[in-house]
Formats: sequence, C-alpha cells, structure tokens
Amino acid sequence: MPPVTFTLQKKDRNTGARLGLLQTPHGTVKTPVFMPVGTQATVKTMTPEEVAEVGAEIILANTYHLYLRPGADVVREAGGLHKFMHWERPILTDSGGFQVFSLAGLREISDDGVTFRSHLDGSTHFMGPKESMAVQEALGSDIAMAFDECVAYPAGREEVEAGVKRTSRWAEICLEVHQREDQAVFGIIQGGVFPDLRRRSAREITALDFPGYGIGGLSVGEPKELMYSVLDELQEYLPENKPRYLMGVGSPDCLIEGVKRGVDMFDCVLPTRIARNGTVMTTYGKLVVRNAAYARDFRPLDPECACYTCRNYTRAYIRHLLKAGEILGLRLTTIHNLYFLLKLMERIRRAIEANDLEAMAAEFYAKYNSGKI
Amino acid sequence: MPPVTFTLQKKDRNTGARLGLLQTPHGTVKTPVFMPVGTQATVKTMTPEEVAEVGAEIILANTYHLYLRPGADVVREAGGLHKFMHWERPILTDSGGFQVFSLAGLREISDDGVTFRSHLDGSTHFMGPKESMAVQEALGSDIAMAFDECVAYPAGREEVEAGVKRTSRWAEICLEVHQREDQAVFGIIQGGVFPDLRRRSAREITALDFPGYGIGGLSVGEPKELMYSVLDELQEYLPENKPRYLMGVGSPDCLIEGVKRGVDMFDCVLPTRIARNGTVMTTYGKLVVRNAAYARDFRPLDPECACYTCRNYTRAYIRHLLKAGEILGLRLTTIHNLYFLLKLMERIRRAIEANDLEAMAAEFYAKYNSGKI
Repeated sequence: MPPVTFTLQKKDRNTGARLGLLQTPHGTVKTPVFMPVGTQATVKTMTPEEVAEVGAEIILANTYHLYLRPGADVVREAGGLHKFMHWERPILTDSGGFQVFSLAGLREISDDGVTFRSHLDGSTHFMGPKESMAVQEALGSDIAMAFDECVAYPAGREEVEAGVKRTSRWAEICLEVHQREDQAVFGIIQGGVFPDLRRRSAREITALDFPGYGIGGLSVGEPKELMYSVLDELQEYLPENKPRYLMGVGSPDCLIEGVKRGVDMFDCVLPTRIARNGTVMTTYGKLVVRNAAYARDFRPLDPECACYTCRNYTRAYIRHLLKAGEILGLRLTTIHNLYFLLKLMERIRRAIEANDLEAMAAEFYAKYNSGKI
Repeated sequence: MPPVTFTLQKKDRNTGARLGLLQTPHGTVKTPVFMPVGTQATVKTMTPEEVAEVGAEIILANTYHLYLRPGADVVREAGGLHKFMHWERPILTDSGGFQVFSLAGLREISDDGVTFRSHLDGSTHFMGPKESMAVQEALGSDIAMAFDECVAYPAGREEVEAGVKRTSRWAEICLEVHQREDQAVFGIIQGGVFPDLRRRSAREITALDFPGYGIGGLSVGEPKELMYSVLDELQEYLPENKPRYLMGVGSPDCLIEGVKRGVDMFDCVLPTRIARNGTVMTTYGKLVVRNAAYARDFRPLDPECACYTCRNYTRAYIRHLLKAGEILGLRLTTIHNLYFLLKLMERIRRAIEANDLEAMAAEFYAKYNSGKI
C-alpha cells in the first residue's frame, strides 16, 4: 500500500472541478484543499491547535528554510517535523527548489543542482535532487516534492526548455534515491507559459508515475489569464486518479478558477502575509484594517464570518493593536484570513457536491467585488 | 455597597502573610495575587482566553498608554476596556503617574500635575489627578489608582518629601472628582526609602479611607533589602482590612518576600518581558532558552511544569522559533512564565492556608537557586 493515495470521489458536471480524498500516514484530507504555509515549522503567529481550529487539514513546510535552520538533523533527532512542531496532521514539504532558484545573484546552477548562499549568514551550500530528498526524508513529511527547476517569469523559450529537461532528469533521480516508505514523492511539472513545453513536461513527469503532481512555475508574475490557460491546457495531460497541486496560489479568485480547472491542492503565504500587513479578506472584499477609517468602527472584520476573531473583536480594537505593534493584532488577522480561505474551500467542496460550483462562484464574486465593506 | 471590597480570610501565624478575597464588579480575586500587565489593552502576545487559562484572575492596564493610543474616548465608545479588549474579569488601571514621571526630559511638574510630551509623536499633554481620574473613568476599570508622584531612586530627602506632599494633595483631589460608582479608587503611598516619610505618607493617605492602598516608589532601582525594610516598616501603618498592592514587583523572590510582609497584590512586566527576550523561569532557576546549549535539548522548558508550552514543546523547538524570529516562540515563553508565576502564587496561598509558608518558601528557594537546570 503506497503511503499516500488519492480517491477521486466526484467530477463536476459543468467544470473541471473534482472532489477527492487524499489519504496520508497522518490522516485524510478532503480536496480541493488549501494548505496554510508553515515556512519555518510554524504557521506564522499560530499554534497548531489554532491552525486546526480554523479548519486546516494539511500544512506546508519549507525544505530550504528548515535545512538552513534549525538543520534537518535537529528535526530528525526531534522525531521528525510533526513531533518537532507539535502538528499531528499531514505535512507536505516543498523541495527547496523554488527558494534556491529565487536567490538571484546568490546561486550557480549545474546539471547536478544548485550551489547557493544562505540568506541567513552567506555560507555556501549545495542542493540537488539527492540532497533535497535526503532533507525531506529527515523532516519526515507525508508528501515530499521532487526537486525541480523553477524558471522566473518572463523567461525565453530556451531557458524554459532547459528547465523542463533538468526537472525531468531530477525527477528520475528523486525517485531513484528516495527510500522512506511512509512518505510519498510528488513530481512537478514545469514549462512556463509555453503550451508545448507544458505538454512535454507533463508527459515526461507523468510517465514516471508519481502518486501526485505539482504544477510549478505559475503564479510567478504572469497575468492570471495566462495561468488559467496553462491550467486549461494541462487538464487532459494529467492522470485523473492523481491529485493535482497548483503551487503558490492562494487568492480567492485563483482558488475558485484553479478548482474549476481541475486543481485539487493549493498553498500560498498570501493570506498569512497580508494579514500581518493589516489586510484582511472579507465577504465584501479586502479591508485594510490599519486604516484610520476603522479607528471607531466597532463591527467585526467581517460581519458574516464566524471565526474566533470576528466573534470576539472589533475593527477598532484590531486597528489599535496593529498601530501599537501588538502581536495579538497579527494573530487575530491571521486567524481570520486563514479561516476565510478555508471556509471558502469548504463552500467550494459543497458546491461541487451539489453540482452548483458556477452559481456559488458567481455569488461569491458578486459580493467580494462589490466593495460594500 | 462599595464597588470593591476586601475580605481578610486568614493571617499567617509566622509571617505577615494574609489570605483574602477581593470582590470587584467583574468577579472575585483570591489574594495574594499577581496581576499580569496588559499595557496597551493586551497582555503582550496572548489572547484573553490564554491569560485566563494560565490562571490570571485580574490584569493591569496602563492609563498613560491608552490615553495616548487609541485614546480614552475610543475605549469609552467601545463600551469600556473590558469589552474593547474582550476580557471579562477584573481590571486595575494604573494612574499614568509612573509613566509621565519616567519621561525624563520630556516633562514639567507643577502642583496641578505634569506637562509631558508623548513618546509616540512628541505632542504635548497635561495630566494631573483630575485628568487621570477622567481617563480611568472612561476606561471603566474595576480599580483605578490615584494619581501620585513617583520620585526616582536615588533621590534626596527634600525631593521625596515634596513628592509625598503632592501625592497626598492629589489623592484628595482624586476622591473629590471621582464619580463612577462601579469603580474603586486606591490610594498610593510614597516616601522613597525614608522610614519617616513612608510613615507620614501612610498616615495621610490612609486617613482618606481608600478601599485599598498601593505602595509606590519601590522596585525602582533600590536594593531589595531596602525594599523589604520599607515593607516591614509600613505593615503596622496600613489598615488590616484593606488590600495592599506593591506596584511593579514580579520576581519570584520579591513575590514571596512581599507576601511575608503583608502584600496582597502585585503587578510587573518582568515575566512577560523576559519571556520575549528568550528567558524563562523554571523550578530550577532561570533558563535562557535562546542559548546554543539548547539547540538539541528535547526536554520541556521546565520538566516539573504543566503549562501548555511544557506539555507540548521542547527547548530545541522554542529556541528554533526564537532564533528564526517566529512569534510563536514569544507566545510559548510568555505563556510559560505567566503560568509559572501564577502557579507560584497559588502555592503561596495554599501554604498560608496550611500555616506552611516559610517551609514552602525554603523549598522553593532551594530548587530555584540550585542552578540544576
């Protein structure tokens, strides 16, 4: 029995949306799912109990960050990442590829991997498919991601093609060296915004028969329409019985549009990051609660929300906390934003179940874009 | 029926320690009590539910800070401080005196009060007994403190004497102008480390028959022995049936020694502040969990502690969080330190009940000073 299996439960009649169950060694996840990001072995500002309370069933942690600090060996000695961070539900780790390729000017790429300098202390390190697998096995996540080359946007065809080639070669190596039987490895499809390169990458990566597939190299600065067209393009090239994970995507509209195009899994720092900057997502659109307009606004962030923050605190109080630099402010906005997105995913799943996704999406957009905050 | 009453339940046979109940409009507090500090309408890093869970029955908030931001009118419009910050248990507000007198170079003192400049934006403000009462009435705390002059340490006799005089005059004004019937005003005794000035201040302030008395101007830099001798001196001058509040004190030894000298209430930023610097109090003394020595230490902060932090996290993980600048690290150390102090207070109360305070204190000191972390 493979460690991670996916059961496709239902396909939407009118869109590409799918309903599924992702079984992992640490429990089952209902898809489509949004995974909050716990970069450094913590979802910023939150306890694991709070992450569970807002409705998260699986989180993502970052291989690059944990490799540098506290070090994969510390996490292994602690008994693995779940135990280290006191989170008993599923964890997916990224490969570190996205991060090391993002270190512009601090890296050197070869066919074996990437030599890079730590953003923490400037020390030199090397990471390739073997190293990434070793680190992720030490972390002990439920799902490890293959080490890929994520090319920046915009990039020329040649560069993207070279990335596709390397990504395919590295995917093979990842499968060869990976050993843990309680951990799955998902492949990653690259190819930028070139339809034929996307198709080629999809063919090559799916030929390796991974238990799931990441769609990488999107949400890196390209227009949303371009991202959607790549997703449209990819649908027929991805096996139906495997989960599809659109990496780095987390705005409400991209979640809805991704789901319509067959995506089962998402992750993004967006909800937690904008929360810490004082911006929250509400039924009626984004609200910058730091603004002076809310100094005497004694309504909850979102009157239609039932999260801990909205049940107990006002905009005026949260604004005060943020202006005063108080940590509780960051906690309250983070709780709200994650709850908001995870409730949206729940609503999406119910709508797929009821063959009602398009109507649900139209209703959501009508309010979200109304500006009637 | 006055809004706040104190019931002396028991006096220790061997020391000056007392067991009591402080009744307030928002509930009853068992004394001796330690009050966590919520300077800006939040106990830093914590939700009110967490503050209650670590065992706090009453918290302190700061008049000076809340007057400047968000402003007393905002808090009043919110329905008062309890509602504003979602804390339904008792609140004591300080008078703002300590803060405005601490703004060296930014203030000018007259017999009416203090002209000072905001530490936030340099704007000029005036606060005296009338203004302090008005702000505290707007905040709606259960216990307001009279506006006093807190003289720095060391200070000459004349300066301290002038402070005692002003404090007495201002105490009268506070009682004259105060109106809220659901809020008590406690007087504050000054007098520095001069026994006769302390006696004089105690006589003058207690003659006004406040429902409780703060002991101010201590823990401002003087040796602990000097503080203890002032407390010894004061005991016979303070009415037995009124609570005694030693302001700004919160180290374990000072709590124990204060209780032995008849103190019923304490507050201090110490446990929460050192927590955010990575220092925790344990059964076996202080532990600087940021230190490299704990990078692979998979024990809880304090193996004898049952707090949320110690039940679920290791020193290695907490160190990682602190090194990585993660907010959860600050939350976990804060929870632990407050739990530790509030458990100590519980233990002290049980020991007084059992006429066992001296043995309990000896046992506590033996471990706490052993260095066997």
